[in-house]
Amino acid sequence: MKKLGMVGGVAWPSTIDYYKAICRLSLAHHQARLADGPAPMPEMTIESLNLNKSYGLRGGSLADDASWMRYDQYFREALQRIEASGADVALIASNTPHNRYASIIQGIRIPVLSIFEAVARHCATIGITEMLILATAPTMDASAFTDVLARFGIKAHAPASPGERAKIVALIAELQTERDDDAARRIRDVVDASFPQTGTVRAVCLACTELPLALPSIERETDIVVGDIRYINTTMVHAKAAFAALLERSDA
Amino acid sequence: MKKLGMVGGVAWPSTIDYYKAICRLSLAHHQARLADGPAPMPEMTIESLNLNKSYGLRGGSLADDASWMRYDQYFREALQRIEASGADVALIASNTPHNRYASIIQGIRIPVLSIFEAVARHCATIGITEMLILATAPTMDASAFTDVLARFGIKAHAPASPGERAKIVALIAELQTERDDDAARRIRDVVDASFPQTGTVRAVCLACTELPLALPSIERETDIVVGDIRYINTTMVHAKAAFAALLERSDA
Repeated sequence: MKKLGMVGGVAWPSTIDYYKAICRLSLAHHQARLADGPAPMPEMTIESLNLNKSYGLRGGSLADDASWMRYDQYFREALQRIEASGADVALIASNTPHNRYASIIQGIRIPVLSIFEAVARHCATIGITEMLILATAPTMDASAFTDVLARFGIKAHAPASPGERAKIVALIAELQTERDDDAARRIRDVVDASFPQTGTVRAVCLACTELPLALPSIERETDIVVGDIRYINTTMVHAKAAFAALLERSDA
Repeated sequence: MKKLGMVGGVAWPSTIDYYKAICRLSLAHHQARLADGPAPMPEMTIESLNLNKSYGLRGGSLADDASWMRYDQYFREALQRIEASGADVALIASNTPHNRYASIIQGIRIPVLSIFEAVARHCATIGITEMLILATAPTMDASAFTDVLARFGIKAHAPASPGERAKIVALIAELQTERDDDAARRIRDVVDASFPQTGTVRAVCLACTELPLALPSIERETDIVVGDIRYINTTMVHAKAAFAALLERSDA
């Protein structure tokens, strides 16, 4: 198996979900084979960043490149350390920095798997054509994610109401500190206010890697249906794409 | 805060416990202070190794240095990458490699916090003078841990019966794959067979970082008393010592 590099800590609870997902996928992959001793695991380098610092380095409008320079650099330097540690493939275990993906990965020679791309591919595969995006403010405000989804024929939008967006941002801050009071219901209320019921299943993308923590039954799944809502777990979609990349052109 | 380096993956479930413990300690530490945005977290580099490989590289008798050369090197190279990534303090998130601690850390310039030392100090502080050690085969067979404990005035022994030792080794293998069928009872049975009831509390050191997974109520504690047994959670003792080291001579 190839070695994986992961930029984590943004925030730390979802880094655990990624790490656990990769290890469980390796366990399942190798349990079917015969190996002496414990199940083989991919080697990984995880650079866990300080979310308080990355938050403080956020720039202004996402169109204003210069204001994001120090933010982009903080992530790029983590990827450089990961590259120096011998990782073959890398990822950033968070949606938000993917709004600055093109700038962050400048000069990085190993592939850095985009979560937006992995999610768009997954959603197209399961037949989603329209989707509500719940995420941090930068992801909901910018067009980076919706542009990628559009390339895969998926029409996506964040909640139109600033009040509904603010509810999601507040919930994410709670989940980052392991609080989740009634989180599933609060998400559902935002969905109902932002995405009219159509009589068919509504696709909702949990496009902040903390949001799946609100729905324990989604932990091991790329998506689940609850009532008339199909929730997409971006963490698991991204982790599965990464594990597949670790197996490519490899004898294990 | 200083940057922490962690050699993990041996095995991966306990690496999650370490990472979670460090992040929760930072959250608690900073919640009492005022900080803008999310709670500050120490930066970390985690080098997650392949347990199947480290297991395969194990040598023979622990006294036979030459047979452990490749095992020691596998861990030393991970510490070298951690050092190159700018960590100020490091640890190996596992008890077993600490039987080879002196050899592994040769040439490493940053402090590598010993779990045996941290546990011995903790046990001495809470007044333990005699203790049963439950661990992997190398830790139960060798004198590395008992020698450190003896320096702190603690008399320790592993189960005398090979059958009882084998039960613990088998249980650890299960916990490494997230199985734990009746694990708490199985540990207690080994304790009862190996450490006669004395009418006072018996101290039992869970000296493999997977063993605390068998007792969910110990997850956030350095030790808990269940009936007449005081269990020591080596993972949490080590993680707490590491977090304290990250705060030393630092303005955060």
